[in-house]
Amino acid sequence: MKRIGVLTSGGDAPGMNAAIRAVTRTAIYNDMEVIGICRGYEGLIEGDVVPLSVSSVGGIIHRGGTILRTARCPRFVKPEGVREGLRRLKDYDIDALIVVGGDGSFHGAYDLCKLGFPVIGIPGTIDNDMAGTDCTIGFDTACNTALQCIEKLRDTASSHERLFLVEVMGRGAGFLALEAAVAAGAEYVLLPEVPFELETLCKKLRYAHDRGKTHSLIIVAEGVMPASELAVQLKDTGGYDARITVLGHIQRGGSPSSFDAVLASRLGGGAVEALKRGESGVMVGRIHGNIVTSPLQVAWEEKKSLDADMMSLIETLGI
Amino acid sequence: MKRIGVLTSGGDAPGMNAAIRAVTRTAIYNDMEVIGICRGYEGLIEGDVVPLSVSSVGGIIHRGGTILRTARCPRFVKPEGVREGLRRLKDYDIDALIVVGGDGSFHGAYDLCKLGFPVIGIPGTIDNDMAGTDCTIGFDTACNTALQCIEKLRDTASSHERLFLVEVMGRGAGFLALEAAVAAGAEYVLLPEVPFELETLCKKLRYAHDRGKTHSLIIVAEGVMPASELAVQLKDTGGYDARITVLGHIQRGGSPSSFDAVLASRLGGGAVEALKRGESGVMVGRIHGNIVTSPLQVAWEEKKSLDADMMSLIETLGI
Amino acid sequence: MKRIGVLTSGGDAPGMNAAIRAVTRTAIYNDMEVIGICRGYEGLIEGDVVPLSVSSVGGIIHRGGTILRTARCPRFVKPEGVREGLRRLKDYDIDALIVVGGDGSFHGAYDLCKLGFPVIGIPGTIDNDMAGTDCTIGFDTACNTALQCIEKLRDTASSHERLFLVEVMGRGAGFLALEAAVAAGAEYVLLPEVPFELETLCKKLRYAHDRGKTHSLIIVAEGVMPASELAVQLKDTGGYDARITVLGHIQRGGSPSSFDAVLASRLGGGAVEALKRGESGVMVGRIHGNIVTSPLQVAWEEKKSLDADMMSLIETLGI
Amino acid sequence: MKRIGVLTSGGDAPGMNAAIRAVTRTAIYNDMEVIGICRGYEGLIEGDVVPLSVSSVGGIIHRGGTILRTARCPRFVKPEGVREGLRRLKDYDIDALIVVGGDGSFHGAYDLCKLGFPVIGIPGTIDNDMAGTDCTIGFDTACNTALQCIEKLRDTASSHERLFLVEVMGRGAGFLALEAAVAAGAEYVLLPEVPFELETLCKKLRYAHDRGKTHSLIIVAEGVMPASELAVQLKDTGGYDARITVLGHIQRGGSPSSFDAVLASRLGGGAVEALKRGESGVMVGRIHGNIVTSPLQVAWEEKKSLDADMMSLIETLGI
Repeated sequence: MKRIGVLTSGGDAPGMNAAIRAVTRTAIYNDMEVIGICRGYEGLIEGDVVPLSVSSVGGIIHRGGTILRTARCPRFVKPEGVREGLRRLKDYDIDALIVVGGDGSFHGAYDLCKLGFPVIGIPGTIDNDMAGTDCTIGFDTACNTALQCIEKLRDTASSHERLFLVEVMGRGAGFLALEAAVAAGAEYVLLPEVPFELETLCKKLRYAHDRGKTHSLIIVAEGVMPASELAVQLKDTGGYDARITVLGHIQRGGSPSSFDAVLASRLGGGAVEALKRGESGVMVGRIHGNIVTSPLQVAWEEKKSLDADMMSLIETLGI
Repeated sequence: MKRIGVLTSGGDAPGMNAAIRAVTRTAIYNDMEVIGICRGYEGLIEGDVVPLSVSSVGGIIHRGGTILRTARCPRFVKPEGVREGLRRLKDYDIDALIVVGGDGSFHGAYDLCKLGFPVIGIPGTIDNDMAGTDCTIGFDTACNTALQCIEKLRDTASSHERLFLVEVMGRGAGFLALEAAVAAGAEYVLLPEVPFELETLCKKLRYAHDRGKTHSLIIVAEGVMPASELAVQLKDTGGYDARITVLGHIQRGGSPSSFDAVLASRLGGGAVEALKRGESGVMVGRIHGNIVTSPLQVAWEEKKSLDADMMSLIETLGI
Repeated sequence: MKRIGVLTSGGDAPGMNAAIRAVTRTAIYNDMEVIGICRGYEGLIEGDVVPLSVSSVGGIIHRGGTILRTARCPRFVKPEGVREGLRRLKDYDIDALIVVGGDGSFHGAYDLCKLGFPVIGIPGTIDNDMAGTDCTIGFDTACNTALQCIEKLRDTASSHERLFLVEVMGRGAGFLALEAAVAAGAEYVLLPEVPFELETLCKKLRYAHDRGKTHSLIIVAEGVMPASELAVQLKDTGGYDARITVLGHIQRGGSPSSFDAVLASRLGGGAVEALKRGESGVMVGRIHGNIVTSPLQVAWEEKKSLDADMMSLIETLGI
Repeated sequence: MKRIGVLTSGGDAPGMNAAIRAVTRTAIYNDMEVIGICRGYEGLIEGDVVPLSVSSVGGIIHRGGTILRTARCPRFVKPEGVREGLRRLKDYDIDALIVVGGDGSFHGAYDLCKLGFPVIGIPGTIDNDMAGTDCTIGFDTACNTALQCIEKLRDTASSHERLFLVEVMGRGAGFLALEAAVAAGAEYVLLPEVPFELETLCKKLRYAHDRGKTHSLIIVAEGVMPASELAVQLKDTGGYDARITVLGHIQRGGSPSSFDAVLASRLGGGAVEALKRGESGVMVGRIHGNIVTSPLQVAWEEKKSLDADMMSLIETLGI
């Protein structure tokens, strides 16, 4: 193992730069060279690469986004794309590849691996919807960003005695919505994993109102429905006049939290260690505090489930 | 002057609590009593009041929103509403009223004043669209909030090499949009005060792209058009694929910045000083560093204009 | 179980209010009454209590500090003090007590428990030096606070090409120092758990300097030595001219992070659940994601050890 | 005017990068070239320069510190040093120099100017102790940083009912201490401009205590005395047991606030405009909202005085 490549792919997540730094420095510490591949698989196919040194990753640990940039790459979904990528890796004398991204990105890594090329995945997505690790890189930061925004909305909701609907990211998974809802002390949360009943929500709002509650915050994961649609339903059914806020891409940016900077540093280091041990086709993750590896397929074959206790907390604490 | 009332009205703004604290403590320091009137003119009419003491305003200087809450009050637009408010003030032995809010709130104050009741206005709105003061309470905090959100968007815009449209508050005035655009180093800004030309914007985007710029941020004040509509126009005319973010009510919340906490403290103190001097029907403001008073009507009769230099800065620095 | 008491004791930690809220609301949800005891065991002995309701804990989830205030109580270390506390609890018809604090506070709880009074402990300290839980309430927030301060120091260290020593809290345990050092990408960390060798540090600084590194950050846990003393040693031995910063009590304040707000909510709820199950003399903790209970003594009898991988990360990534 | 140089000198201040960006882009917009001179006058003498382009100043507007780094340069205080600097400027075909820094840095600029070289100063220091501008770059950010730290201290001061002394930067001027004290609602402030009377402070503390105030915050500018010394005096004279926090270099770092990013952008642009108009030996400043120029000597010959109203606000609002 003389020279390794590293790329970031899919949606960006805070901490990706910390992972790039950790991969680069751990590799150099172990006498390897590191090539940064820009714009994910797209840049791989196009040969958009840059050598990384100890100093070129200095000062990036706290920058949001990814210095290698990222992209979706439809070409890489097809076998020709993957073979083209493989050729490029060989052109650059790269012996192994480390991929930072979500489950879509891991699919590409898996395809490369099936052609015999050594690949390690590092889970980076604010959605936290990947098995094989208790937390993905970026999740904690996104929770804090969402929390800070919701706190600001609470100020104005409380001053105006209003009902606020806050749409947070999460197409297929409600981890971010649930965590933010508990952390913000929201009164209700709509999750993709739980069937939504308008009746129950309206009843709860009426009950809260009768008890003297003058404002409420409802968190809705984008995968359930747009906040704007929920507002219409609440108006039509219960006569509620709700304000809506869509947090959107803000949740993807920002400096990584301490938790994410540490997690990314450990997973970045762990990925290089796994390569040194001769592993391939695996992702690194942190489970119960330990850095472990699991087959890449775990990322899309296994389903990480929401904590039932967290869901009942919303009910108990939102009274 | 034995007992004064204070209320917050209209949209809430960070720093309103700091103003309430300053009014209360300055009044008590001057041997007056202070009555807090809840929910603006609505609460005045309904007699929703609470006495304020030195300690009841302790610890509120940094809280977002307003502890007195706020509301719009259509009843107070009509003469009967104003007269009812006046009766209430007399019921509570209140000798003068201090109103914290925007120009709409100052209209109500003006109506009370015309009936002979002593009133002082404190300008509090994130829009900064009031003459009689260089800055309104809340504007600086809102600029910082917008800036911090836009910085997060810049992370992801840069990582994905995308065009982002950010809609900021500002129906009739572009102060917030312009300040945030310069502070964030945005490439373009759409202001209510300046006619928008789609052609010019598309040309600028093409030029930036030709020069190698891979991502751009455009700030649009809500008063010009919704960001979603701008996205459609950019798609139709130039084929641009833009992501949109609507900052919304987040801009209204949060702890006041140092600037706003100081401004609110000074204007709150200044309002009580003005009452002591026997002034009425005026607003306090800070102009060129000095606390001054102007007739309440200035808030809606005079137009504060955007700084032309700031507008050309966007052009120069966004290259 | 009709009426429970809750108190915070020892050094305050961000998230204590979230724990108070969760205890209160979970108890009321389960038809219990809740009495807040002010100023820890001191307030218990003096009968400084206040009933808590659903609304009296509204809006406190994100406030730093503790609304019940806290104090050290030498009287409670002696048997008479504990018996006096017990009498007070009976005077107020309190059936069980929930104590939020560190291991010192748990000693007091244990003494009460030995007299037959039902007690549950919730671990709250920024030091994270308590077994029985993977994380204590406040640790994550303190890490983020330290990180944000160190990032600012990095700006100026880098601009001036200087060596900075940052003293973080931690008398007997280096969890905070280690986490902050990894998160901040510090070049070196001094931990109470690891013997300090001045020679090794100077060698490392020389090596870094020879490689062209123009600035360095060294984190020192207060338990090792004051930063000012380290500065003298570095000056005397290696001629280094270091700037020092002592983060101090700043690390104890601030709104809880998302992680801490969630942890505190879960442990607060878990403490009431434990009481319902008839448990006593235990602390609640989160281990591997699950809310569990352990004997109170675990807090001072078992030693939680630093992660060895984290220590070697500093070495690898600080090159 | 074909090619200009820019350097940052003295203590770094948030917003210096925004100023470098504005100078660079405004100059390029006006068809000039820009040379960045690293490490202030030290780097000038040593020929440590780097060309700046539109893209090399991209993404720096929000970074703390200065990408050109800074240094103190004793050599430049002497005539030979200045002449050596002048030779270097001519070696690099630089036609004019823009210096970002405090009054010490302006002295160097003035010396260059006396030798006939065109120089413009941009005031950048967190101390705000320069006439010729209402605010220096970095002051507002430092106020916000201090405020945020003090708010965290307030949490723990209030929870523990303690007296806290906070030492903020400011050797000869109390602008930062006074602004932070008013913004934080501190009970007392010690300023270099005002003779300190221990008796008065103790009396005030006793009075506050008698009125039931359980915690207090005292802000002390470093120029008055170290917080540690004040603690000793308070202990000896009044028996007060105070906690101390020294904010230190944290106040120098961090992303610029919106206010500072805008101010730096305007002054950076204004400096280039002044060069275009043929001005030299002047500093740019913002006075009453307008960008103006004043002779460089104003920075050290005129004394900017504290606002008397601000000082009495502490007295009135700290009751």
